[in-house]
Amino acid sequence: METTYVALVGMGTVGTGVAQLLLDLGDRTARYAGRSLWINHIAVRDVSKRRQADLPQGVITDQLERILHDPQVTLVAHLVGGIEPARSIMLALLENGKDVVTANKALLAEHGPELFDRARHLGRTIAFEAAVAGGIPIIANIAQCLAANKILSLEGILNGTSNFVVTQMDEGAGTYQQSLETAQQRGFAEEDPTLDIDGTDAAQKLAILAHLAFGVTIRWQDIPRRGIQNLNLEDFRLTQALGYRIKLIAYAKLLDFGLQLMVSPMLVKIGTPLAEVRENYNAIRVVGDAVGPVFFHGQGAGAMPTASAVVADMIDTALGRTKITFHNLKLWSDRESPVKVSDVGKLPGRYYLRLVVHEQPDVLAQIAEILGHHHISVASVNLHDVTQPHDAKVSLVIMTRETREASLMAAVSEISKLPFVAAVAERLKVLD
Amino acid sequence: METTYVALVGMGTVGTGVAQLLLDLGDRTARYAGRSLWINHIAVRDVSKRRQADLPQGVITDQLERILHDPQVTLVAHLVGGIEPARSIMLALLENGKDVVTANKALLAEHGPELFDRARHLGRTIAFEAAVAGGIPIIANIAQCLAANKILSLEGILNGTSNFVVTQMDEGAGTYQQSLETAQQRGFAEEDPTLDIDGTDAAQKLAILAHLAFGVTIRWQDIPRRGIQNLNLEDFRLTQALGYRIKLIAYAKLLDFGLQLMVSPMLVKIGTPLAEVRENYNAIRVVGDAVGPVFFHGQGAGAMPTASAVVADMIDTALGRTKITFHNLKLWSDRESPVKVSDVGKLPGRYYLRLVVHEQPDVLAQIAEILGHHHISVASVNLHDVTQPHDAKVSLVIMTRETREASLMAAVSEISKLPFVAAVAERLKVLD
Repeated sequence: METTYVALVGMGTVGTGVAQLLLDLGDRTARYAGRSLWINHIAVRDVSKRRQADLPQGVITDQLERILHDPQVTLVAHLVGGIEPARSIMLALLENGKDVVTANKALLAEHGPELFDRARHLGRTIAFEAAVAGGIPIIANIAQCLAANKILSLEGILNGTSNFVVTQMDEGAGTYQQSLETAQQRGFAEEDPTLDIDGTDAAQKLAILAHLAFGVTIRWQDIPRRGIQNLNLEDFRLTQALGYRIKLIAYAKLLDFGLQLMVSPMLVKIGTPLAEVRENYNAIRVVGDAVGPVFFHGQGAGAMPTASAVVADMIDTALGRTKITFHNLKLWSDRESPVKVSDVGKLPGRYYLRLVVHEQPDVLAQIAEILGHHHISVASVNLHDVTQPHDAKVSLVIMTRETREASLMAAVSEISKLPFVAAVAERLKVLD
Repeated sequence: METTYVALVGMGTVGTGVAQLLLDLGDRTARYAGRSLWINHIAVRDVSKRRQADLPQGVITDQLERILHDPQVTLVAHLVGGIEPARSIMLALLENGKDVVTANKALLAEHGPELFDRARHLGRTIAFEAAVAGGIPIIANIAQCLAANKILSLEGILNGTSNFVVTQMDEGAGTYQQSLETAQQRGFAEEDPTLDIDGTDAAQKLAILAHLAFGVTIRWQDIPRRGIQNLNLEDFRLTQALGYRIKLIAYAKLLDFGLQLMVSPMLVKIGTPLAEVRENYNAIRVVGDAVGPVFFHGQGAGAMPTASAVVADMIDTALGRTKITFHNLKLWSDRESPVKVSDVGKLPGRYYLRLVVHEQPDVLAQIAEILGHHHISVASVNLHDVTQPHDAKVSLVIMTRETREASLMAAVSEISKLPFVAAVAERLKVLD
């Protein structure tokens, strides 16, 4: 059996998983790859640290040069997080003739154009299945399996931490703060969970998927995004009564006037596949013009699911499939995008609106007048006592019919100025 | 842009879809394939038949030789159903130096070894994404995306006709016969639906998936199978009350003592992804030892979803990815299987059992004694009046704890001989 000599840079959670899979490979890849992948080196920062994997002696090193200058090694799994030194390490690997497999979505979202240009120029490849949705092979599915389709829309639950928290809240297990603590205790949230719960992580992944599925190049910072950190238990209760769950959705939709992108908590109809994605799971629903809706569900993070994606990429690279795909996709090249990203204000949609108001007889009349003025039809209005604090205020829940984001924003701005409106407590898009 | 010249054999539903996609390709494949696929010929039986697609003149022919002897054509979509002349046509294509893409699962399930051997010998390739689960790219996902995993189990709803019928029955829309007629009216069942509803189609697809996922070569006829044609509305009602839906499941599970394969209606827990697969949709749940459970859902048949899979294969073949995959997978070769198919009697599982009995005080005692004798624990017993016919008989529904298929069969055989047991009306495995 043929052998491909490989190396790893980084041995955190994912690196350990990859090492375990490769050490155990033998039979398992023989059938699909017809070869074994042999680890020559694993570069780490601290060689003295104890490792979970049972590694052959001499494999661990803190000298990246040992990998760079080993001519036997042509393929390296780059498992370093963050931007620097991750970027410099990847460039060094490419410059030294190594094909790279990475799980670092932040790096690609930030420096994709530079890294891919460099790889193309040097005749090398970068594979990144593990960078989005961990164990769900969404990159290969869009770039290869659905290649006959024009992708019409893509909706994903791409951040496991957020989904764990909103699942807890949806099940009434606790407030946002309590649910986040449970997530941390169970290992589904980091000590500093900011990038997960504020939508950054999902926006970075969406920027990558949007480039792949629609050809647009967009900075993740330019994707309108809102996280889950200001969600209120009361809205979970009220939306459930209306037949919805609140989920953090990475959303892309191709419309006549362009591509709409956003990351935001949205109302997802109970009983549809995305609404039933629970705990730390990820899922993506892709609609292609030929295939129709296709739905993928699996673990989006964790050592072994992510390692599964990394090693699949390593096999693809060793076999030469990555070279073909990489060459043809021309990702982050100067190729012109077939579609433009459109202003999100034009996005049509239905909305859930919760106002906290001082009850008086003409409340509905005044609010309805403003909505009507902005051509927003109302599907339902429900008034709920505010359970806490016990004062004279009530929650007024409005579900709109289809309108435009910009119209809604303008109406909400006017409504918020009404004297009896204490607060516009929530405003969420309904996923169609 | 490069051009790959292709041909189609057959222009039924799928062939028409493929032709439409290819005629419309241009931009859509440019991004993923960096080339266009140009149709030189489409071979059909009856050239005078009107076609839906707007084809260039001279493309349609009833002379297969025009394809065989066109040196420009290196890639042919083989879209002919059945065994003969489908088999001879595929062999002729391979002999004449054409790479083949096919949607014919029956042909592969029946003659896979012969066809793949021939292709290997001739240095050609056969791709068959469309043969299983239509638009869901399950072949590429198992063979490539999950290649780092040892697959532990695979459970699929692989026949859209059957799933449409059981969904109708589950929703109380009609009896088996009425539901089948609805399926036929809505185009989800053929005039003669035998192979779909008796489990043959699902068994053929399972034989292909089992070969891919576990390396076993099994004749589809050797997979224990039962269809949906004897299911009774009453069991849908009773199992729903217990929290389950009845689904036709293609089932493969790797256990210590071997691989268990079967096609049968099973009880699937409401709220789990497979239970919520409705109408004509297909779905597959694969569990890999690294990735954990991954779930795929989409349209398993129909012109455009199937064409999506065929054209993806054509792009893969044109680019050279298929050659790499085909060469390494060594499907249906003389390579020894890493696992053995085990006798299904050893399969552990829980069961739903419905007995029709003449009510008398010692019914439960006598049945419980037999079950106990076969080491079968009972999880629940419920007695239901038989609504029709109105006689002295009642339905006795037993849910067992985990036992072996063989133990259950032996117990059922004894129970059926009890004088007060009018019938063992249903026996269904509970999907774990």
